[in-house]
Amino acid sequence: MQLGLSVSDSDVSSFTPLVVLELADDTKAEAITWLLNRIRDKQQNGGAELLVNQLLFPAQDDQKPNPNVFVVGSTLQRLLNGAEDVGLFKEFQDGTMRGFTYANRESFNDFNGDGEGFLSDAECQYIIKHELDTLRAKNEEHVPGYPKLKLYPGKSVVRRLQSKGVLNQYFPLHNKEDLKRLSFSWYKKFKLSFQPLDDIRHYFGEGLALYFGFLEYFTFALVPMALIGIPYYLFDWEDYDKYVLFAVFNLVWSTVFLEVWKRCSATLAYGWGTLSRKKAFEEPRAGFHGALGFNPVTGREEPVYPSSKRQLRIYLVSVPFVLLCLYLSFYVMMVYFDMEFWAINIYNEDPSIATSILLFVPSIIYAVVIEIMNLLYRFAAEFLTDWENHRLESSFQNHLVLKVLVFNFVNCFASLFYIAFVMQDMVLLRQSLATLLITSQILNQVMEAFLPYWLQRRRNKKVHKRMRRLMGDKELPLLGQVKLETEMNTYLGTFDDYLEQFLLFGYVSLFSCVYPLAAVLVVLNNITEVYSDAFKMCHVFKRPFSEPATNIGVWQLAFETMSIIAVVTNCALIGLSPQVKAYFPESDTQLILIVVAIEHVLLAFKFILAFVIPDVPKHIQVNLAKLEFDSLEAFKKRVSTHLYMCTYLSHANRKCGSLYDRPCQEVLQCK
Amino acid sequence: MQLGLSVSDSDVSSFTPLVVLELADDTKAEAITWLLNRIRDKQQNGGAELLVNQLLFPAQDDQKPNPNVFVVGSTLQRLLNGAEDVGLFKEFQDGTMRGFTYANRESFNDFNGDGEGFLSDAECQYIIKHELDTLRAKNEEHVPGYPKLKLYPGKSVVRRLQSKGVLNQYFPLHNKEDLKRLSFSWYKKFKLSFQPLDDIRHYFGEGLALYFGFLEYFTFALVPMALIGIPYYLFDWEDYDKYVLFAVFNLVWSTVFLEVWKRCSATLAYGWGTLSRKKAFEEPRAGFHGALGFNPVTGREEPVYPSSKRQLRIYLVSVPFVLLCLYLSFYVMMVYFDMEFWAINIYNEDPSIATSILLFVPSIIYAVVIEIMNLLYRFAAEFLTDWENHRLESSFQNHLVLKVLVFNFVNCFASLFYIAFVMQDMVLLRQSLATLLITSQILNQVMEAFLPYWLQRRRNKKVHKRMRRLMGDKELPLLGQVKLETEMNTYLGTFDDYLEQFLLFGYVSLFSCVYPLAAVLVVLNNITEVYSDAFKMCHVFKRPFSEPATNIGVWQLAFETMSIIAVVTNCALIGLSPQVKAYFPESDTQLILIVVAIEHVLLAFKFILAFVIPDVPKHIQVNLAKLEFDSLEAFKKRVSTHLYMCTYLSHANRKCGSLYDRPCQEVLQCK
Repeated sequence: MQLGLSVSDSDVSSFTPLVVLELADDTKAEAITWLLNRIRDKQQNGGAELLVNQLLFPAQDDQKPNPNVFVVGSTLQRLLNGAEDVGLFKEFQDGTMRGFTYANRESFNDFNGDGEGFLSDAECQYIIKHELDTLRAKNEEHVPGYPKLKLYPGKSVVRRLQSKGVLNQYFPLHNKEDLKRLSFSWYKKFKLSFQPLDDIRHYFGEGLALYFGFLEYFTFALVPMALIGIPYYLFDWEDYDKYVLFAVFNLVWSTVFLEVWKRCSATLAYGWGTLSRKKAFEEPRAGFHGALGFNPVTGREEPVYPSSKRQLRIYLVSVPFVLLCLYLSFYVMMVYFDMEFWAINIYNEDPSIATSILLFVPSIIYAVVIEIMNLLYRFAAEFLTDWENHRLESSFQNHLVLKVLVFNFVNCFASLFYIAFVMQDMVLLRQSLATLLITSQILNQVMEAFLPYWLQRRRNKKVHKRMRRLMGDKELPLLGQVKLETEMNTYLGTFDDYLEQFLLFGYVSLFSCVYPLAAVLVVLNNITEVYSDAFKMCHVFKRPFSEPATNIGVWQLAFETMSIIAVVTNCALIGLSPQVKAYFPESDTQLILIVVAIEHVLLAFKFILAFVIPDVPKHIQVNLAKLEFDSLEAFKKRVSTHLYMCTYLSHANRKCGSLYDRPCQEVLQCK
Repeated sequence: MQLGLSVSDSDVSSFTPLVVLELADDTKAEAITWLLNRIRDKQQNGGAELLVNQLLFPAQDDQKPNPNVFVVGSTLQRLLNGAEDVGLFKEFQDGTMRGFTYANRESFNDFNGDGEGFLSDAECQYIIKHELDTLRAKNEEHVPGYPKLKLYPGKSVVRRLQSKGVLNQYFPLHNKEDLKRLSFSWYKKFKLSFQPLDDIRHYFGEGLALYFGFLEYFTFALVPMALIGIPYYLFDWEDYDKYVLFAVFNLVWSTVFLEVWKRCSATLAYGWGTLSRKKAFEEPRAGFHGALGFNPVTGREEPVYPSSKRQLRIYLVSVPFVLLCLYLSFYVMMVYFDMEFWAINIYNEDPSIATSILLFVPSIIYAVVIEIMNLLYRFAAEFLTDWENHRLESSFQNHLVLKVLVFNFVNCFASLFYIAFVMQDMVLLRQSLATLLITSQILNQVMEAFLPYWLQRRRNKKVHKRMRRLMGDKELPLLGQVKLETEMNTYLGTFDDYLEQFLLFGYVSLFSCVYPLAAVLVVLNNITEVYSDAFKMCHVFKRPFSEPATNIGVWQLAFETMSIIAVVTNCALIGLSPQVKAYFPESDTQLILIVVAIEHVLLAFKFILAFVIPDVPKHIQVNLAKLEFDSLEAFKKRVSTHLYMCTYLSHANRKCGSLYDRPCQEVLQCK
C-alpha cells in the first residue's frame, strides 16, 4: 500500500489534478478499466481524451479506504479545444466578449504563448465536467461486468453510472493558493468595499457570483429603507398612523428595485460573457428513468416516460399533498393564535415583567415551528418532485421551486396576513412580525453556517490526525486534500440561499411599514450572511462545479410576483390606516373605491414600467448588436471565399474534385 | 413613340416582369443609367444581378406619360440563390420546414427539374424587393447627376432614392391568373367554408394571411357569444339584472380567446415556415435622416440622430399633443351628454314617434364625430411619429400604434365608461353602445370598401378607354396592366384593419353583457368584412409586397391589454348589478370588497393561465427541437469532416497548402 501511495503521488504530479471521481468501493474491475479507457481514449474514437490516475490511500486500522478514487486532469491543448466545445466566451482584443475559438486564440486578450493561464481553474473544471458528461455510449450494450446496467448509444455514460450508484460522486478540487487569495479579499479583511465578484466568478463560476451579486445589491438597496426606518422607529414608537408614507415608499421601492436589478444582472452577465451564450442542448437528468422508447427529437432509443403519467402523479399526488401541507400550516397558525390569546390573557390578569416576556413566547415557538415545517416540507417536496420523474433538470427545478415557494409563502406570511386584514390588529402584527423575523434569522444563521462549520472542523481535525498518525509529519498535499474534500458536504446549489432572501424580501416589502426596523434587521442579517456564506463556500462545502448563468432565473419571477403582492398589501394597509380613514369619516365605500382605484393605477404603472425599462442597458445592446453584425459580415465573407475556392478547385484541380465538392456543399448548408 | 412601345413590349417578354419601378419623370438620364447598371451588375461587383427593362407608354393628347417606368425580373437561378439569402423556409422532404439552401435544393418537396414553380410569385417578388433594398452604395459619393444626393458606403441605394423622392414607388405586379383563381376560392363563390389561408399566404404573403386568419378566428370565437346573446336579447329585453352570468362568460372568453389564438398563430406560422425564421438585420427606414456620424454597431459612416433629441420631441411635443387630443375628446363627450339630455327632455315633454327617433340622433352624431376625430388623429399621429424620426421601422410602428391606440380607446369608450360607472345608467349605456357600434360599422364599411371600390372603378374605366382610343382594340396586356396598377391606391398595411378589430373586440369584451346583441353585430360585420377586405385586396389596391410574419406582433399585446381591462370592467359591472347588490342589502362595503377580491383572483388566474399554457403547441415544439438537433449534429459532422480535410490537404497536397489553410481556419471560426 505504501508503494501504491507513493507511485500514485508521483504519477499524479505528471498533470494538475482538477476533478476527483469517486466510484463505489465495490465496483467491478472490468467496469473500472472500461471507464478509464473511455475517458483516456482519443476524441476520434469517441473518448474524452482526458488524463486520469488512481489515488491509493493508505489502509487504516479502523476502516478500509475506498480504492476507487481517481483524479482527472487534461492537457492544455485539450482544454482549449474543450473551451470551444462548451462555447466559452472570453474577452476579445477589441474589449467585447466573444465565443472562444482555437483558430482565433491569438486575438483574445490574456492569451500568451501556448495559452497557459488563459483559462481559470473553474473554467478548466467546467470543461472537464462537460467532457465527462458528454462521454457517450457507443455500441456497448451494457457496462462491462454489469449486464443489467444497460447503455443507450449516444447517451451520457457518466450520468448513467451516477444514477445507478456506480459513480458515487465527482467534484472539482479546491485550489489552495487561489482560495487563500480569494477568501482574504472576500471576507477576511474588514472593509467597507464591494465583494470581489469577478474573483468569485473566477473561482466558483457565474451562478454563484450572481447570487452574491444579488445578495449585495439587495442589501445595498435596503439601506435607504433602513435609514428611513430608523427615525420612524425611534420617534414614532407607538404611532402606527404614520405608516402611509412608508407604505408608498415600499411600493415604489419594490418595483424599481427589481427592474434595476435586471439591468445590473445583464451588465454582470455581459462582463462574464454569459449573456449572449447559447443554451446547450439539455441532457436528461441523472435520475430520470422510464421504459425504452424513441426520443421524438433525436429519434434515438432511450428511456422515455409518458407526460400523461407525470401529469397524473402531479395532479393526483403532489397537488393534494401540497394542499394538505397548506391545511396543516393553517392549523398550526390557529394553534399559535390560541397560544397568543392565552398569553395575552395571562398578561392582562397579572401584568409583570415575567408575563410581558411570556407575550413573546408564542411567537418564538411559532417561528421555530415554521422553520421546522419549512425544512421538513423542503425534503418532502424534493422527494415528490424527484418521484414525478421530470426528464430535464430545468423542469425539475421549476416544479420544485413552485412547490417550495407556495408553501413557504403561506407558512411564513399567512399569520401576518390574518392579523393584518382579518384581525386588523396592528400592534400584534408588529410584534408578531418582529419575533418571526428575528427568530428565523437567528435560526437560519445557526443552521446554515455555524452547524456545518462546527461539523466540518471536527471532521477536519479527525482527518488530519489520522493522516499524521499514518505518515508521521510528512506533508501529504494531494492525498490529504482529496481525502478531506471527499468527506466534505456537497453544496446543493443556490436554492436555499435564494429562498431565504425571497422570504426576507417578503417580510420587508409586505409589512415593513408597520415595523420599519425590519429593513434594518434584514440589512444586518445580510451583512453577516455575506460573510457566513462566503466562509461556508470556501471552507465548509466541497467546491461546486461552476454553472454558467445569464440571470437569477426563476427567482427573478418569484421576486417580481412578491413585489406585485406587496403593492396589493401595501395599498390595503394604507386603506386600513386610521390616518387615511379620517379623511372619509362618513363612508367606508368611498375610501375602498379610491384605494382600489389607486391600486389598479399602481399595478398598471408597474407593468408599464417593467415594459418600458429595457432589461439590458443601451451600451450592452449596442455591443451585442455589433457582435451579431460582425459575425454576419464574417459569414458572408467566408461563404464568398469558399464559393471562390470551390470554383477554383473544381476547375484547376480536377483530379481531387470529388473530394473537395463535399465540404463546399457542406459549408453552403451551414447557411 | 409607337416604335418605343413595340420594342419595349417585345423586350419585356424575354422575362417575366415581377416588380414595377417608377422613377420621378424628371430624373436625370445619368442617374437612370447608373441605377440600371447597378441593378443589372453581377453580385461579385456589388450589383443585384436582376433583369430590368424600360416600359414606354404611348403619348397622349392631354398628358405626357412618365417615361421612367421599369419592370424588374430575374433568372430562376438568381431567385433560388436569393431565396437562400433571405432565409426562406420551405418544406423539406421529411415534412418539416427548413431554411432553403441551393446546395440541398433536391431535398425539398416540390423542387422538380430546374426548380420552375418552386417559388411562388409572392416569394419571387419578396426576393427581388430584398435584393433591391440591399443594393448598397459602393464608393460613389453621390447619385450621378445629383451632387447633393449623398450616398453612404454600405447603405441601401433604393431607400435613399426613395426618401429623396427620385424613386416614386416600386411595387409587385398582380398575376392575373392566380388572382382569378384566388378570388374565386376566397370570396366569389358563396360557401360556408374557411378562407383559403394557404392560398392567400401564397399570393399576398404571411403578414396578410395572418390578418385574415385572425379575422376568421375572431369571428368564429364570437359565435358562441352571439348564440348566447340572442336568447338573452330576445327574452330579457328590458331585464338588465341578468347580465351577471353573461359578464362571467365574457371574462373567461376574453382570456381563453387570446391564449388559444397564440397557439393557432404559431401553428400557422410554423406551417408557413416563418416561426423559426431569424429576423434580418433591420435597415433604417426610408424617411430617417440626420447629421453624418458613425453607426455604433457597424462602425460605418451614416446619418445618425441622437436619441436624446428624439426623446425631447416625444415628451415635449408628442405627449402634450396626445393629451390635448384626449382633452378635446372628453370635451366632445361632454357636448354629447348635453345633447343627450336635451333630447331626453324633449322626449319627456312630448313622447311621440318623432321625438323617440330624436333620442338616437345625439348618439349617431357622436358616433360620426368619433369616426372623424379618429381619422384626423390618425393622420396627425402618423405625421408626428414620422417627425420623431425613428431610425427603425419597428420603433416607428410601436410609437404609432401606442399613440393611436390610446386615443382611439379613450375616444371610443370614454363615454361608455362614464355612463356605466359615473352615471350608472344601464339603459342609456345599452342604447349608446348599440348606436355607436352600428354607426361605426356602417361608416367603416363605406369608408373602407365601397368608396375605394367606386373610385377604382372610375379610374379603371378611364384607363381602359384611354388605352383603347390609342391602340384601337389591340390587346395591351402588360402596358395596360402596369398603367392601371401604377395608378391604384397603395395598401398601407394591416394597421387599420387590426385597429378596427381591436375596437370591435373592445365593444364586445367590455360592455356586451349589457347589450348581448353586440356579439351578433360584430359577427355579421366581420363576415362582410372578410368579403370586402378580400375584394379590396384583390381589386382595389396595388398588390403589396409579402411580409414574412411570425405572429400579429404588437396587436397581440394590445388585445391582451384590452382583455385585462375587460376583466376589471366586467367585475365592476357585476358589482353594480341590482341582482348582486340584493345579496348585500345592508352594506355596500362588503359587496365591494368581495368584488375586488374576486377581480384580483381572476386577474391572477389570467396571468397564471397565460404563463402555464405554452405559446407553441407541443408537436411543433418537438419539430423545432428536432430541427435544431439536426443542424447541431450536421454541424459537428461537418467540422470533423473539414478537420480531416484540412489535415489531409496540408499533408498530402503541400503545394496548395497555403490556399487551403484559409478556409479551414474560417470554418473553424464559424463555430
